[in-house]
Formats: sequence, structure tokens, C-alpha cells
Amino acid sequence: MPTGGARIRVTHFSVDPGMRSRLSGDSYAAALPLGETIESAGVGRVIESENPKLPVDATVTGGFGWREEFVTDGKGVMALDPALFSGKVTTTAAIGVLGVPGLTAYFGLLDLGKPKAGDVLLVSSAAGPVGATAGQLAKLLGLTVIGIAGSPTKCAYLKEIGFDHAINYRDGDLSKALRAAAPEGVDIYFDNVGGEMLDRAIAAMKPHGRIVISGQVAEYNAEKPIGIRNVTRFITHRLTMAGLVVYDYRKQFPGAMAALAEHIQAGRLSYREDISAGIETAPEAFIGLFKSENFGRRLIAVV
Amino acid sequence: MPTGGARIRVTHFSVDPGMRSRLSGDSYAAALPLGETIESAGVGRVIESENPKLPVDATVTGGFGWREEFVTDGKGVMALDPALFSGKVTTTAAIGVLGVPGLTAYFGLLDLGKPKAGDVLLVSSAAGPVGATAGQLAKLLGLTVIGIAGSPTKCAYLKEIGFDHAINYRDGDLSKALRAAAPEGVDIYFDNVGGEMLDRAIAAMKPHGRIVISGQVAEYNAEKPIGIRNVTRFITHRLTMAGLVVYDYRKQFPGAMAALAEHIQAGRLSYREDISAGIETAPEAFIGLFKSENFGRRLIAVV
Repeated sequence: MPTGGARIRVTHFSVDPGMRSRLSGDSYAAALPLGETIESAGVGRVIESENPKLPVDATVTGGFGWREEFVTDGKGVMALDPALFSGKVTTTAAIGVLGVPGLTAYFGLLDLGKPKAGDVLLVSSAAGPVGATAGQLAKLLGLTVIGIAGSPTKCAYLKEIGFDHAINYRDGDLSKALRAAAPEGVDIYFDNVGGEMLDRAIAAMKPHGRIVISGQVAEYNAEKPIGIRNVTRFITHRLTMAGLVVYDYRKQFPGAMAALAEHIQAGRLSYREDISAGIETAPEAFIGLFKSENFGRRLIAVV
Repeated sequence: MPTGGARIRVTHFSVDPGMRSRLSGDSYAAALPLGETIESAGVGRVIESENPKLPVDATVTGGFGWREEFVTDGKGVMALDPALFSGKVTTTAAIGVLGVPGLTAYFGLLDLGKPKAGDVLLVSSAAGPVGATAGQLAKLLGLTVIGIAGSPTKCAYLKEIGFDHAINYRDGDLSKALRAAAPEGVDIYFDNVGGEMLDRAIAAMKPHGRIVISGQVAEYNAEKPIGIRNVTRFITHRLTMAGLVVYDYRKQFPGAMAALAEHIQAGRLSYREDISAGIETAPEAFIGLFKSENFGRRLIAVV
């Protein structure tokens, strides 16, 4: 154990669609070398410590990766504030609704979506951790919210958490369903999918509509980029499309986390976790993300 | 002649790529019925008048359409301010650099492009009236400016009017030429073309780059929309793309026109007109726009 070091027992880590591009590499990030630990957010417990900021038994979070135990020099590992993580806010929320997915929803909606009461929000992967949070926050701001998900069960869940409309994209013509749910069009499209779904959403936008590019699950496993066709709509409808990387808002994280925690404690914001037991289940759980198998934030419990 | 009416002799009218979608109709505007006058901006002279705001011999402008003479009730017809249209500013500038193309460049660059000194601007159709104006304005603001055009003559012209780099897109690999001209990438892409050129420009953008969708000439005659493939770049590079319709800035037109006129008088902003004589030349001149035949603002002189 080095001075200042601590040994962490990982209790949970996340599997995220966004990790897909790190596996094969893309135009922006180099591919993860074979044999390296796959990156992901984690929650754990300090089991040995030479670091006063990380006392034994403290619950901690950070970019732990897919692993069960490790020794850290303390960098990038934070003890959870028990005042924030109590009551209805579980410690796993640190890598869910109070972590990257929840913060992506928060800043994507508020900063890039520019929502105002009366606006219509459309969100894809709506039963996922980003989409469900974005939709519920939009309801709190007085928007009409339409969610797209991949099963009747997920659609029922969206209605339960307050969405005005839920569309199962596997169930018939999506464009027609969008016209029925938003006859006057959509002001904000919060996109977690990309590809053809994005193209259809563009065709459903109102003038001056805002498109938030948060995730592009349809693209991550595509042989060739799929992209969009409806670019002239950007002129005719004065659309704006902007991409989001949540780490750009790092300085504003504490305020956003406090706001999200308050909504949860007050029962105004709910979240759902889809926990799979055992590190050996991680590859399967990861692949399932691209088949829309997950229902809520997908985590691995390291038992 | 009705009371308040005036008879206008058209001296010049414009042919514009944007009119293409009005001919066949699109998702936004209905097709122009057969037999109707094709819409366009015009300049003319009052030859008979019952309207004190439009005295005989006044030079006027408005959406006259492709025609030689007409009687107006005065709506949508404006007498040119002789103080603005004098010296180096010709009356035809009213439908060029001080009209829709110049104002599109002005508001597209300033409002959507968010330029700052040191930024790199890339502009397509750079020898056209929108592109040449956008590039010159950007130079006045301290940007590095790269223009894409379709011939060596046009590229030479771009260097003449102060562009730092001029790329002939017909001359080899555009992506390679972009990397050579902007090794660190592009901050603002002012897009008048769309399609594959837009995709290549997206791949050349710096993080936080802004894409201004001003025109989409490559799309207007395409059988099927071409669109773009590089959408995941919007996340990795935090790109923004926004479409422009200049009429949204109508209230700010007088100030912008005065600013543009001042630059022209001072010799800081030049413009080029490509005038074709005779109303019978208009169809050919219009079709040539899509073959990159025009060199500057294409106008028809009605002789």
C-alpha cells in the first residue's frame, strides 16, 4: 500500500453504450489496447487505507473500470457525501441519475435544449437512464413530453413516470405516431439513438426546433456511418443541432447533483436500475444495450 | 392605374439557387403553379405613378419576379435611399450585396457563426455573392478564411479579395486540401452547398465548431436527399449546426445594410456581378447556377 493509497472493493460498475467507440476506436479516441481494463464508472467501499480522505468503510465513486478490487493513489476517487446519498438516493445513483447519465440529461436539456413551458420534447431511448431523466425534468419545467422506447413494458413505464405520450418504435410507422403525438411538431428532440430515428425526428420538428445529440447508439455498431438525409430542413425550419459531452460542464456538477437529489427525495424524479449480478455477466449485459434489452441504468453488481 | 399605384419598368432581376425548391415544391413550401411568375428580387424605375412614395424616375426594389414591367399597388416596393446607393454602391447592389445574399452572409456569419479573431472560417461557393461577402466580412473581423470554389479563375479571385486559402474542389482530394489549409481544423463552416462537401467539412471541424447552413445547392436537384454521415462527430467534437432564413432578421436589415455599404465605400468589401442581358436568357442563367457557371451575383438585365 503506497502512502496516500487506498484499496477499493468495487461493489457496482456500469456498462454504457458510449464505451462502444473506445473498443474499436473512432475518429476521436484511440482504441483501447487489448488486455486493458474496460473503462466505466464504479461505486465501491474502501477496505484498506493510508489516505485520510478515503477512510476505511467509506463509500466511494470514480472511473474504476470493469474490475473487482484495486489499489488507488487517490486520484479520481471521491468519497460520497452521505448527506446527498441517503433516503431515496441510493449509492448506485452516483453512477446513474446523479452520475454521467443524469447529468447528461440535465445539461443536454437545459443548456442545449433551451426548454420553456409549453414546448414539446421528444426523447429517444426514453426508458434508459438519460432519456427517463430528461423526460421527467422536462415535465417539471412544464413541457409536453413524448418518449420513444422499444417495448410495451417500457412504454407503460414512461406513462407511469409522467410522460404524456409513449411510442413503441417497433410498433408500426414511427413518423405517423409522431404526427399523432405532436400534430404541431416537436420543439426539442433529445437524441440518444441517431440514424433513421433522428431523420424521422428532424422531419417532425417545428420551426426553430433544437436537436440535442446526446447518444448515437444506432451508429456505434454500424459498419458504415448511417447519418441523416433531412439537412435542407435545417434551413426551411431554422433547426439547430448540437452535440454534448457532459464533462464540459464539470464545474457545474455539484449544483446539478444537488438539484437532482432534491427532486428524488421529494418524489418528483424517479430512476430505475437494471442490475446484473457478477462480473462475468458484464459482456452479455453490455451487448444487450444495443438490442434495447436494458430497462433503466444497467449496472453490474460485483458479488 | 389604381389610386396609390405605380408602373414599374424592371431593369434587373436575380436568379437564385434557393428558387429551385419553389419550382418543384418541397416539404415546406408548395410548388409554384404553372403559368405563375417566377419569384425573384428586382430593381426598376417608376415610369408612371399615383403614389407619392414612388415618384416617377425613382429607383425601386422589391420581389418583382421574372418580368419586364408591372403595375403595383405599392406594397412590397421600396424606393432606394440615394444616400446609401451612391459612389461604389450600384443600384443592383440592392438585390445583391445589400440584398438577400449579402444579408445572409452578414447574419449567418455574425449570429450563427459566432466569429472571433483568430478563428478559421471555411466557406463553400466562396466566389458566389453569399460566400464572397461572408469571407470578406470574416477577414475584417480577424479570422483566417478558406474558400472553396469550382475553378482556378474563381480561386484566383478569392485570393484577390483577401482570402487566405482558396481550394478548387474539382482539383483532387478535398479532405486533403482542407487538412493542408487548416491543419488544426475549422471553427466555422459557412455552408452553401451541402451533401458530400458538408460531410467533409464536418470531418475537418475543431471541437466546438459551428456549422451555418445557408444554402444546400447540392441537394436542390438531387433525386433523393443526400444528407450527411458524420453525425457522431457532433458528440465527439461538440459541434453545432444551425439553419438560416434571412427574413428572420428583417428588423435588423437597415443597420446591416448601412454597415455593408460603409465597408464598400471604404474599399474594404467588394462584390462581383455576373449580368446576363435579356429576359430570355433567364432560364439558361438559372440552370447554370447548379453547374457552378456563375461568377458573382447572377442578374438578368432587362433590356
